[in-house]
Amino acid sequence: MQQPEAILTIAGTDSSGGAGIQADLKTFTAHLCYGASVVTALTAQNTTGVQDVHGVPPGFVVQQIRSVLSDINVRGMKTGMLFDNDNTRAVAQTLKQHMGSHQVPLVCDPVCVSTSGHVLLHPDAIDTMIDELFPLSTLVTPNRSEAELLLSRRNLPAQINNLEEMLAAARNLLTLGPAAVLLKGGHITVSSAEIDQLSASDATIHTVRDGLPSENMEILQTAGTFTSDDVLVVDVLCQSDGTVTLYPRPRLESTSTHGTGCTLSAALACQLSRGESLVEATRLATAYTHLGIETAASIGKGHGPLNHIHSLSLLNIPPYVIVPLDAAPDLTIYSRRTAGNPHPLTRALIHSTRGIWKEYVQHDFVILLGKGTLQRESFLHFIKQDYHYLKYYARAYALLASKSHSFEPILAATETVFHIARESSMHKSFCAQWGITAEELENTPESPATTAYGAFLIDTGLQGDTMKLVMALAACLLGYGEVGLWLKKEAGQRGSWVKWEGNPYLKWMEDYSGEDYQKAVKVGLETIESRAAADPPSLARFEEWRGVWERCTRLEKGFWDMAMNLS
Amino acid sequence: MQQPEAILTIAGTDSSGGAGIQADLKTFTAHLCYGASVVTALTAQNTTGVQDVHGVPPGFVVQQIRSVLSDINVRGMKTGMLFDNDNTRAVAQTLKQHMGSHQVPLVCDPVCVSTSGHVLLHPDAIDTMIDELFPLSTLVTPNRSEAELLLSRRNLPAQINNLEEMLAAARNLLTLGPAAVLLKGGHITVSSAEIDQLSASDATIHTVRDGLPSENMEILQTAGTFTSDDVLVVDVLCQSDGTVTLYPRPRLESTSTHGTGCTLSAALACQLSRGESLVEATRLATAYTHLGIETAASIGKGHGPLNHIHSLSLLNIPPYVIVPLDAAPDLTIYSRRTAGNPHPLTRALIHSTRGIWKEYVQHDFVILLGKGTLQRESFLHFIKQDYHYLKYYARAYALLASKSHSFEPILAATETVFHIARESSMHKSFCAQWGITAEELENTPESPATTAYGAFLIDTGLQGDTMKLVMALAACLLGYGEVGLWLKKEAGQRGSWVKWEGNPYLKWMEDYSGEDYQKAVKVGLETIESRAAADPPSLARFEEWRGVWERCTRLEKGFWDMAMNLS
Repeated sequence: MQQPEAILTIAGTDSSGGAGIQADLKTFTAHLCYGASVVTALTAQNTTGVQDVHGVPPGFVVQQIRSVLSDINVRGMKTGMLFDNDNTRAVAQTLKQHMGSHQVPLVCDPVCVSTSGHVLLHPDAIDTMIDELFPLSTLVTPNRSEAELLLSRRNLPAQINNLEEMLAAARNLLTLGPAAVLLKGGHITVSSAEIDQLSASDATIHTVRDGLPSENMEILQTAGTFTSDDVLVVDVLCQSDGTVTLYPRPRLESTSTHGTGCTLSAALACQLSRGESLVEATRLATAYTHLGIETAASIGKGHGPLNHIHSLSLLNIPPYVIVPLDAAPDLTIYSRRTAGNPHPLTRALIHSTRGIWKEYVQHDFVILLGKGTLQRESFLHFIKQDYHYLKYYARAYALLASKSHSFEPILAATETVFHIARESSMHKSFCAQWGITAEELENTPESPATTAYGAFLIDTGLQGDTMKLVMALAACLLGYGEVGLWLKKEAGQRGSWVKWEGNPYLKWMEDYSGEDYQKAVKVGLETIESRAAADPPSLARFEEWRGVWERCTRLEKGFWDMAMNLS
Repeated sequence: MQQPEAILTIAGTDSSGGAGIQADLKTFTAHLCYGASVVTALTAQNTTGVQDVHGVPPGFVVQQIRSVLSDINVRGMKTGMLFDNDNTRAVAQTLKQHMGSHQVPLVCDPVCVSTSGHVLLHPDAIDTMIDELFPLSTLVTPNRSEAELLLSRRNLPAQINNLEEMLAAARNLLTLGPAAVLLKGGHITVSSAEIDQLSASDATIHTVRDGLPSENMEILQTAGTFTSDDVLVVDVLCQSDGTVTLYPRPRLESTSTHGTGCTLSAALACQLSRGESLVEATRLATAYTHLGIETAASIGKGHGPLNHIHSLSLLNIPPYVIVPLDAAPDLTIYSRRTAGNPHPLTRALIHSTRGIWKEYVQHDFVILLGKGTLQRESFLHFIKQDYHYLKYYARAYALLASKSHSFEPILAATETVFHIARESSMHKSFCAQWGITAEELENTPESPATTAYGAFLIDTGLQGDTMKLVMALAACLLGYGEVGLWLKKEAGQRGSWVKWEGNPYLKWMEDYSGEDYQKAVKVGLETIESRAAADPPSLARFEEWRGVWERCTRLEKGFWDMAMNLS
């Protein structure tokens, strides 16, 4: 994991979790940032309104800020509800001290009144916020009513009913001291024509049309992607260098807007902490917030919260697995590739098919072979069929080479073709030892089990991508490695059931437990795990891999059934 | 989005974000649950210790709980630091009332003392917690020192130094009233032999060995997956039916343990809210917590927080995109498939290649064709080469059919082969109209641009999976649709530069802007978007798709260059 940026919010709580530090912490988490939070006031609140407020003493607010800033390398900050004049001053002064020696972007969300109309900042605190906090702020993010309140407080024109007045208001707010102002336009409907007109009239005004039709996408518009050009909302970003950026988006009809301002300012703090420009941070943070409203689930009886987790998915294997186990379906196993568990995918594959995997690697064939009591006909039938199988197996690696993009995997797969050819010489020598000529071996008809398995490999290779083919090749590579190691380990026990010296099949056991083959197993494991870590599968894709693995495990078992049955 | 489970935590805050309601909210979010939180006390705290505590009045605690529970359908609850006797009683009584009419699992984390030694629960509150909160609890989750404190309070044997004493302690704690006890063993080292011995002695004891070697995984152990059997830690789950479950894991050497208890109990509440059994919820929650410690980044100067987000990844397209734009590399576009934006992947593909895409769909060839002034030789050269190209294109769809798994995509691709054959008859009739015989058409040598594009389609189809082939087929399908729509739209403008009636290439424009072709475009768009939504790509895979799309867009442009140059 890379080190996450630490972001600090200084704000009130929302017991219902949709706004305040709760929304901030969720937003930080959804941006994969680390969240710290200082509480200025507690609210007993839900989606229908604010039932009660409990202010926190300014000295305790200061102590919280110091506890965080003295210990944690905070890379971005935001303020929300500051509650009263003393707390506002205490926050501003403590931050000013810190920012004297630390460059940290600060987003000030000038929370004054809740969506439900509850006063969240005492009127006398507004001046303190303007005088002491705005000058520290990288960005101030008022909505319409907050902007009107702030402007009227300074006897500036405070009517904001259209885009032109939004622009004027944002420019006036900029004179109050912050480095930039983002005036949120969620409550004012604007048409595309108005935006074009305003842009045309002033070269300092740029428009970021992320949420609107782009050039050369007629096919998407015809297919109904975009809503009408006439019901847009626009956020206006004004920077101290005089540049203005407009962010038009389709207006959403939704009541899931509780905590919109908290969420936006929290997302801005995350983006700014990563060094994004104000223009880019605003593009990303407004997009995140817009989608949070658009994808919100219904929670509570009033104005519900945004969906803060629309940006997230649970990881599948690796590093995360959701594995239907034989014993208990639908279990979830968490496993990330770590030093302690470097093979999460392979482990999940084996674990999820552990019944059939055990029937394969501890097959009667293997046990009798280990005891040295396996019928010679069975072994010879197996070795002849395995000889045919190895041709498919070599062809499948050649196919893998032909499907690969760069020399490293092309050569690795090609090397394996040679390895398989060498492996087949063991088969020839077993046959020779027991009087079967090379010609007889070559002319032995293929059993259905051999054709099924071999052709399945080739078919899988032709159907899917290289990783799917790697999955198909794994059951054989890993399973024989497992059998070799198991027999060798068992042979090492005192009074073991495995007969090692003098076993007619000793060479077979030596080959698969030997260094050469086990090295190939390790390389195979690393290939599987590193490819999966670099290109983590969706759940659907993981299931596809698992399906191929399971199928091959069954075909392996079938192969030894065939040997036992001489079928 | 499915409706997330709402989980409530009732606990103290941790300003530094690693423990308390902050850890709880992060854990809820990491489980894709919706978090609400009631604050019982504020702490000014960081990784080095607790600097100050500010208790919240019991009446305000009750009001917060009521605000949440009266509005939000809470599916799981946990309690953490309750601070003092009044708050403990207030919480217990308010929850008791609610739980009289609502079945909600409650996890009680009996927080008494911080990792750094700070008292977080007044001693007189401990009895209240036992008497009033334990009987309501689905599960109580003490660590060793909390268990010792609780037991000594009731004059029960309170020495916990080994596995046997852990088991006895857990059973004794169960007599205090909760439905189950999870005694956390992070501070006690246990060997595998002790676990086996204990399990063998008592049939009610089961072991979940998630974090330890399983059967038939010799290959993974040899490759160094697992640590020694002798430095394990064990969590012990005791249920009221008498069953005991042990969860052994390798002991982690880490100082990133601040908030471990909060995190575990929060994760338990999430799992229980989804109806997981206690055994399974404990397996998942302990695994989540273990991995949080193992993958923690270094934050703060003391005992740092766990990594709460190890379970998460940011979504790629769709629903999330990280697109390197021509204009500004490394921009992130958030776009989830929603009613307002049903084609996020296609949009991202076009947007990310918008320069070359425009050169393709607004090629001079297209503009001159629209004007009706395109040289007949250029058009004829194009139409003859396109005829050859369509054979590759038909073969690529046949290849797509051959790589598909079920009849629906097999038949859809096969239908398209017929469509392409019909499309090619337009080419024949253009040729016939201008005196080129069918034989001459068929014998026209392929231009390199045709071979490059056609062979690239087939090669891509052979290299990758079906989605990669779909990507390769998209630039032609969608681009010609875009050209057709654009010309038709432009033709509809007053005084248009496009000559519609009387244009020698009218049939070509009619065909690609017509209903039949545009329907194919819509089907293609739906295929692309629905497949990507069902199997969201990793970033690596998305980049692979984008690479194929961009390559084909360039080959399309090259195709019209060829027509203009008669090359």
